[in-house]
This record gives sequence, C-alpha cells and structure tokens, in this order.
Amino acid sequence: MDHGINTVPFVSVENMMRLVIELGMETALYELTEYIDEDFRRWPSFDKTPRVASHSTDGVIELMPTSDGIDYGFKYVNGHPKNMKDGLQTVTAFGLLADVNTGYPVLLTEMTILTALRTAATSALATKFLARKDSRTLALIGAGAQSEFQALALKTVCGIDRLRVFDIDPAASRKCIANLSQSGMEMKICSSGHEALEGADVVTTCTADKQYATILTDNMVGNGLHINAIGGDCPGKTELHKDILLRSEIFVEYPEQTRIEGEIQQLDAEHPVKELWEVITGRTTGRENDRQITLFDGVGFAVEDFSALRWLRDKLKTSSRYDLLDIIADPDDPRDLFGMIQREKLRMKNLD
Amino acid sequence: MDHGINTVPFVSVENMMRLVIELGMETALYELTEYIDEDFRRWPSFDKTPRVASHSTDGVIELMPTSDGIDYGFKYVNGHPKNMKDGLQTVTAFGLLADVNTGYPVLLTEMTILTALRTAATSALATKFLARKDSRTLALIGAGAQSEFQALALKTVCGIDRLRVFDIDPAASRKCIANLSQSGMEMKICSSGHEALEGADVVTTCTADKQYATILTDNMVGNGLHINAIGGDCPGKTELHKDILLRSEIFVEYPEQTRIEGEIQQLDAEHPVKELWEVITGRTTGRENDRQITLFDGVGFAVEDFSALRWLRDKLKTSSRYDLLDIIADPDDPRDLFGMIQREKLRMKNLD
Repeated sequence: MDHGINTVPFVSVENMMRLVIELGMETALYELTEYIDEDFRRWPSFDKTPRVASHSTDGVIELMPTSDGIDYGFKYVNGHPKNMKDGLQTVTAFGLLADVNTGYPVLLTEMTILTALRTAATSALATKFLARKDSRTLALIGAGAQSEFQALALKTVCGIDRLRVFDIDPAASRKCIANLSQSGMEMKICSSGHEALEGADVVTTCTADKQYATILTDNMVGNGLHINAIGGDCPGKTELHKDILLRSEIFVEYPEQTRIEGEIQQLDAEHPVKELWEVITGRTTGRENDRQITLFDGVGFAVEDFSALRWLRDKLKTSSRYDLLDIIADPDDPRDLFGMIQREKLRMKNLD
Repeated sequence: MDHGINTVPFVSVENMMRLVIELGMETALYELTEYIDEDFRRWPSFDKTPRVASHSTDGVIELMPTSDGIDYGFKYVNGHPKNMKDGLQTVTAFGLLADVNTGYPVLLTEMTILTALRTAATSALATKFLARKDSRTLALIGAGAQSEFQALALKTVCGIDRLRVFDIDPAASRKCIANLSQSGMEMKICSSGHEALEGADVVTTCTADKQYATILTDNMVGNGLHINAIGGDCPGKTELHKDILLRSEIFVEYPEQTRIEGEIQQLDAEHPVKELWEVITGRTTGRENDRQITLFDGVGFAVEDFSALRWLRDKLKTSSRYDLLDIIADPDDPRDLFGMIQREKLRMKNLD
C-alpha cells in the first residue's frame, strides 16, 4: 500500500470478495486462524473492554475497540435478527485500523464478510485446541449466513470431513449443502437437531433468534462432544439448555463480556470458566479426557477483529483490491484547516 | 439521497469543503447551532455514555456514540497534540449515522471539518445563552485550527464584531487574522493573553497542550466575562487556573464526561455545575447578573456530533456532494453470504 497521509485505503464489499476469491476461501480461513492464534498468544498486551452496545427493541448496534499499543482497531457491527424477513442481513459490519502514534486511520474496510470469516476462524481455533483429536464429524445447527464459513474453517483447520446440517427451514439446509458442494466433505441434511447430533464429534450452533432459545437440550449432548455455541451473543439471547452448561467445561474469549452476552449469562457470575488464550498459551488445561464435554461459548471479541484487520492490511501489501478514500482533512499547515477551505473556494471559482 | 440498501452515501473531505462553501461558512455555522439547540432541547431522549477513550503516551483515540432511538450516530476522533510538529492534524475525525431499526449505516462522512464546525457552533450556543447580551468583543487565546471557526460562529450567532487574538506563536495569530480578513470583524493581534483580555466580553481558550496548562490566570478574568474553555478535553489537559473555576458559575454538556475530561477535573467531584441543556430549556438559570463570570467547560459531546450528522444528512437531500460507498454486503438471500462470494467468483471467471 502506497498512499498519502490524507487518504485511507478502503476495501469495499466487492474488493473483499475478490481478495478472498483470489486467495482462496480456505486459505483465507486458515491464515485468519493463524492471525487470531498469534494475537491470543499475546492477549495481556491488548487494551480490552467489553463492547459498547446500544440496544433497541429489534436489535443492537455495537462498537468493538481494542489496541495493542501500536495499532488501534475497532468494528461497527449491528445484530438485528428481524432483518432477515425484510431481506436484510442480520449482521453487517465495517471496521478500521489506526496508528496509535498519530491517531490517523490507516485502513477502512467492509467487515460483514470479514466478520463471517473471523468468526469461523475463531471457532476453528477453539475446536483445534478443545475437540478430541480424532474429530471428523461436525453437526451444524442453523444453516444461515455463518454456516458454510464454520464448516470450511473446521475442515481446513481441524480436519473435519463429514457434515450433518439441521435448520428449521429445509431450504436453508439445502442452500448450505449446495454452497459446499465443491468442498469435498461428506454431507447430510438432517430433519432434526437430534438427528444432526448422531455421531457428531463437534457441534456448532449458529442460530439468530434474539430470545432465550433451546437449540440443544441436555439429552442431545453425548460425552466427548465439543460444542461451539456461536449464535448467543447478546443479553437475552442463548442457544443451550442450562443443564448442558453445568455438565461442560466452559471456555470463553473475555469473561467480562461473555458473562453479559454468552450462554453463561444463564449461570451464576462466579461459575468457573477458562479463557481460550490461556489454553492456547498452555497456562491452563483444555480438554482433559475423551469423555469430557467442552464448550466454547463464543460471542465474538474485539481482538479477533483486530487480528482480521491486521491480516487484511498484510494482504493489501501484495493486492490492489482497495480504493483510496479522501477522508482525512490534512492542510499543509495543520493549524490552517480554515484556510484549506478558503483555498478550495478559490479553486472552485477558478474552475468556473 | 437516493441509494440502494447496499451502498452508503459518503462525504469526502473535498465534498465537505464544497458543501460548506456552496452554503456559506456562516450559514453552515448558524444552521449547525440551530440543530445542536434542537437536540439539546430533547436531551433526555438521548442514550448517553461518556466516550470510549483509548489513551496512549502521545494522544487519545475516542469513539463517541449516541442515539435518539431512531437514528444512531458515532464519531471516531483522535487527539494528538504532538502531531502538529510533524505536520499532522491534532484532531482528525470521521463519523457515521445509522438506522436504529435495521442497524444499517445511512451516512459516512469525514468529520475533521465537521467537528471544527460543530465545536464552534456549540461554543456559539453556550455564548448565546450565557454571555452578557451586549457582548461585542471576543478574546481568542490560541490561534490554531479551531480559532477562525470560533470567531465566525460567535459573530454569526452572537453578534460578536471585535476580535483580539493571542497565540504564543505570532505566525498563528497572523494566519487567523488573514483568514478572517473578509469577515467584517475589527481584529487585533495581541502580544499576551493579558492584552487579549482587555475589554473582552467573551473569551474562548482553544489551545492544544496535553498537560495541565494555565492559559488564563485569575487576575486576567474580570467580572461579567463569559469563558468558553474548549482546549481542555481529556484527563490531564486543562487551560484555566483553578481559582477562576471557583469564582465562576460553571456550565457543562454532560457532567459524567466533563468531570473526567474538562476543566472541572481540577475540582471536587461534588462541585456544583449546571447543564447547558437545562439552561436552554429554562429548567435552570443561566447568567444571573452582569457581574457574574460564566464558564462553559466544553469538552465536546456525542450529541453535538449527532446534530452535525443530522444536519449533513438533511443537506444531502438537496446537494450531490457525496459518493456512494460499497460497504454493505447485501446478498439477495440474506442467509446466503457465502453464495454471494461464489457468484462473484463465477462473474470473475466469465470476465476472464
């Protein structure tokens, strides 16, 4: 990227798609998992805060900032489950990376696609560290916008090669299977959650209702399973029956945020949980035996977006899939913002 | 503005300049003051939170969100006093307006210029309600990027027609006077803060040091003066000697934020302050007599940015000074984000 200080590289939706296509979706997911892994290994070096949420009747708008002291990143993201029936995305997002030293933005990007990728990559990272090593079969509950990304990330990172899909809408399951037809995975549409869980080593729940739901009940969950519970990500929105939580070893991204937003909002504030970064760095144990149920209560944390923004910035070193956005007012004399406007006025007159 | 749901109107720095020029700077400042006045009158209807600040050695990066339940707005803004010596802006900003109902962004804009305008408009609003009615002379301490906007806003909104400027750098004062040569104001460059204050009815301090500074000392401040203290806007950054605060009636935007960032961080947390919106709505008294010293301890609050974003959105109804940004991924079937990327892959192949 070569750009002046007054313009910011911007990755549009089209450019994001093309960048991912040129790289290959699986490669993108694999690399993102690596970037998130790297950042989780230096977890204490991040300035962390629960996201700033503005809740309304139908949804939530959130700002998710973090910084490692060198770069600052944040994401704007909404969550509106009722959008789908109006033909709109449940989740849309964009994000920014800035230079902590100057406060100047250095990258602005769509993040709807990038969030889908990093969410799947985070599940893959958790699965890699928490699922049984011989895991091959993924049950996918919910075949919405996140489903194919989950399947491909777990295939690429964790060696999952069998997929069992259930969605209350069979058309969604068919869409998911069709989209993954080139993936080389063995796939089956199931007519119930129960059926999907049969023989599964790993389950990812990614449904979108903003209400206490029970996508998984206790009797569906056998010993040794690893669960990625992805869909519950705001107060009042959960997917698992409380009894499952009580039988599981629970792993989270950032407890301060997960206790508000995750499955564990159903539990006492003191219920023990482990932090994923501590498993990755070996500070705590992950799975302890093949009969244990491990649960990654994923809500999505700012550090993962930061990793995704870092990844994108690195990709743009060799890709031209960006535009330059004239978003920073930068007069020759920094104290002369007013004069910059006056000079523009003269220029406009001369153009007439 | 007529645009599809997958694009967002974007106002670049150039378009912002041209929009302001076409409207007229004074008209823009006057209208912005009206918009801020309107929003201050419905202050309780806003979802308010102190800004989310990420401090580093040399500066701060802040996110400033607010919502009235219909629209959601936020601003990204940095403050890096040391930037100036590197030829960079101390403050740069951009912002966004979104639809609370869907969470979809509806406007993205540069806000370096817009922040300069709304900061001046807010001072003008405070001055209109707090200064003596016969005020004509403004002392401007600090002739940086904000100075000319302050002078013009106070001229347009409050009838100020005499300007006395002091900056530790005489070149900055000369720049300020030159930029305002067409304003019709009577102007004088002063060689000290003391001199600038002589005969002043109103003083605006807008300096940029990130440290406890004493731009105004107690003996410089005569009875009846109205002070806009604009430059102190983060922890450790103040401009006024504490004794001035103790002699003044103090007015603030949002006490929860100002006690952290404003001049009043020098005072006890219980020191009485009045809220500007309560003065504007008549819930509390403003200036009580011609001898009182009134102090607007302005730090800049998210509601002012919200007003500015509303104003800009309304301007774009009749102006074409915007581009459309492809920043929202919006597949035909909202659950088929993955398929959207696959279809783009086919399109790219067909283009080959």
